[in-house]
Amino acid sequence: MEKTYVDEILDEKFVGSSVSVSGWVYRKREMKDKIFLVLRDSTNIVQCIVRKDKVTEKTWEKAHKLQIEGSLKVTGKLKKDERAPTGYEIEVEEIEVFDFGDIFPLKGDEKPDAILSWRHLWIRNRKFTEITKIRHSLTLGMIDYFVKSGWYYVFPPVITPTAGEDTTELFEIKYFNEKAYLSQTAQLYLEAMIFSLEKVFSLTPSFRAEMSRTKRHLHEYWHLEGEAAWMKNEDMMDFVEALVKAGLKKVVDERFEELKLIGRDPEQIKEWIKKPFKRIKYSKAIELLKEKGIKIEYGEDLGADEERELTLMFDVPIFVTNYPREIKAFYMKEVGDGTVANFDLLAPEGYGEIVGGSERETNYELLIKKMKEFKLKPERYKWYLDLRKYGSVPHSGFGLGIDRTVRWIAKVDHVRDTLPFPRLRGGWLEI
Amino acid sequence: MEKTYVDEILDEKFVGSSVSVSGWVYRKREMKDKIFLVLRDSTNIVQCIVRKDKVTEKTWEKAHKLQIEGSLKVTGKLKKDERAPTGYEIEVEEIEVFDFGDIFPLKGDEKPDAILSWRHLWIRNRKFTEITKIRHSLTLGMIDYFVKSGWYYVFPPVITPTAGEDTTELFEIKYFNEKAYLSQTAQLYLEAMIFSLEKVFSLTPSFRAEMSRTKRHLHEYWHLEGEAAWMKNEDMMDFVEALVKAGLKKVVDERFEELKLIGRDPEQIKEWIKKPFKRIKYSKAIELLKEKGIKIEYGEDLGADEERELTLMFDVPIFVTNYPREIKAFYMKEVGDGTVANFDLLAPEGYGEIVGGSERETNYELLIKKMKEFKLKPERYKWYLDLRKYGSVPHSGFGLGIDRTVRWIAKVDHVRDTLPFPRLRGGWLEI
Repeated sequence: MEKTYVDEILDEKFVGSSVSVSGWVYRKREMKDKIFLVLRDSTNIVQCIVRKDKVTEKTWEKAHKLQIEGSLKVTGKLKKDERAPTGYEIEVEEIEVFDFGDIFPLKGDEKPDAILSWRHLWIRNRKFTEITKIRHSLTLGMIDYFVKSGWYYVFPPVITPTAGEDTTELFEIKYFNEKAYLSQTAQLYLEAMIFSLEKVFSLTPSFRAEMSRTKRHLHEYWHLEGEAAWMKNEDMMDFVEALVKAGLKKVVDERFEELKLIGRDPEQIKEWIKKPFKRIKYSKAIELLKEKGIKIEYGEDLGADEERELTLMFDVPIFVTNYPREIKAFYMKEVGDGTVANFDLLAPEGYGEIVGGSERETNYELLIKKMKEFKLKPERYKWYLDLRKYGSVPHSGFGLGIDRTVRWIAKVDHVRDTLPFPRLRGGWLEI
Repeated sequence: MEKTYVDEILDEKFVGSSVSVSGWVYRKREMKDKIFLVLRDSTNIVQCIVRKDKVTEKTWEKAHKLQIEGSLKVTGKLKKDERAPTGYEIEVEEIEVFDFGDIFPLKGDEKPDAILSWRHLWIRNRKFTEITKIRHSLTLGMIDYFVKSGWYYVFPPVITPTAGEDTTELFEIKYFNEKAYLSQTAQLYLEAMIFSLEKVFSLTPSFRAEMSRTKRHLHEYWHLEGEAAWMKNEDMMDFVEALVKAGLKKVVDERFEELKLIGRDPEQIKEWIKKPFKRIKYSKAIELLKEKGIKIEYGEDLGADEERELTLMFDVPIFVTNYPREIKAFYMKEVGDGTVANFDLLAPEGYGEIVGGSERETNYELLIKKMKEFKLKPERYKWYLDLRKYGSVPHSGFGLGIDRTVRWIAKVDHVRDTLPFPRLRGGWLEI
């Protein structure tokens, strides 16, 4: 089928010509002798006017019967009209209706919980559509940057045997006669792959069965992970900074109008691209928080509230590095002063953690010692430990939450609204 | 850390200069007064010679102790040497060892089942490494083509409530106090998204708990799916043909040497790009198979054997269209002669189905009627049916198996060896 997009016909050169566009009824206003239909497609909206005295009775009847979200193709003459929302108007000659549509059940002002069972229709709203386009550009911008930098796109599994002992935060699957789990991270698999491919990345859903219900948690989230041989923690921070900036740049380049439509100033994003990200040690972060009167002691993890406070002190994303060894995972490389060579990247304006990464411990004996200290059973990690027995090399890696990053860039209140069908408890599995 | 790649130093201009490269011991041959080490990294291999009378005792000792797969950085003078595997040799001056390595447990001639518990080390082999690079280029070539053609990259969920009644081929998950399932396809979700974005694609793992154990089945596979408004079945075939060719083209452009190394003639791939894919109706396919003496009747589905026979009759991929309505899914649009507007794309040389697609039924009443006939409960599909009530439009979609496509292009015997950690029954969940 031929399809002309709204954006293609909104052009000075078609004024006075007959144009055809297909789409859905976005708005409708009916008067005695004319009907205004605003038609939308994926590119834009355009006002169409149906004049009773200019069309056949059948065409008038069609325009009258069409509901909001009904689908149609209009043909008519394009005119300039400064009062119209996108500056042009189509003087309708003919209408082909695909579906008149039932009365659309959503008005646009519903509360999220109220639209749980209407999510499949709610996702048509303009704001979510723009957010989805922003996510598209952000994701592709980062993939492009990986590829341009010589990293290989790899495909680790989502179904996994459990490596860890604590399965409370994992979803259990019935895998024929065995138990299996949904993966929380591809890290261990990516580590296995650097010994041949050196720099690898993956983009997979990851799963967390944790009970926290906050605006930045999802049970299923999109995880962009990278792992590279011969990179130290600092190298990886440099890479992650460039990666995030590449994603931001593509968003600004491709989604300037969409950003403005959803209330995010593209100039603000340009500022973040231009300025170096801040880098501070965890110990310094604790100091700053204490100065602000926040109750926190060295050794305690930074929660959402503390991260929020920190991000409000700077106007750029912040790398917080060198966390105490006790509050971070066993595989992170220790630097000798009780801290590890790691980083969390916090997004500004209170959005908080979007990336976590570290250099990995490469020494077989040290890794086993640490596992025991952390009450993990080394025999459960046999294959992972093997990676330190046959050509171990310095390496680092990280995981970036796509959904959280979109939340920040697109100023989305709840991370669930960065995804069409998010997975949360309380009814968010209906569709 | 600085890292120079083998491919970067294998250059006329460095002959006579001192070079440094890091990597792993690929091969080793030790003589009384010299040791040959072939070093590999992700780009290539290079021969290094350690002469006892030219290095310190310590360096000699290091070379002696290094095992296959041990990790190191060598520094030395680059020489041309036509006897060396890649035409150059490094006359070693210094060796920095990251890990001498234990005796590597794999020799390279193990049977797949025998290396089940060594998969994390087995994946370092050169053939699998080249296949992974081919998969990288194929996947990116297709993503690029989607993006260039104006499709949006979207992220449907993997955890789903069951829509269908038959859950025997679905993996069940314990989702807090509910049952949920791992998705077999994103199609229904993608259909919901075309009403705002028009053309959408996703790349997700899909899951099949079916019992068949063949060389083309995986329980977890990578699924590239597309769905577009305003496209008829024929339009979608045109798109899929161009999409697959774009993937093939990127593979030939970027992986010419890799293809040769694994025994696939790149010229053959160029032929497939050049020639139009064959299109035949299912009824014609049955006729051709009968002529060949195959026992099959109109109305029976094509199995792997039949697909194989068909693909051997042509030297290009084949679209088989218009299957009988009874043997295809309820959502496929009927054309009125007892068949549906669908297609399966079969890869040549016996590889068989890599894509399945169809135009979708858009009429609410027809869809309900068909569901009842197929013994499906319309009330379980309420939200999906809604898509036909509020602005239904003609649309088509498809799903492409990345793993199967890689299997074909890279001539891989068993689809499992297109993935690092495949999911099959019988031990393939150890790692």
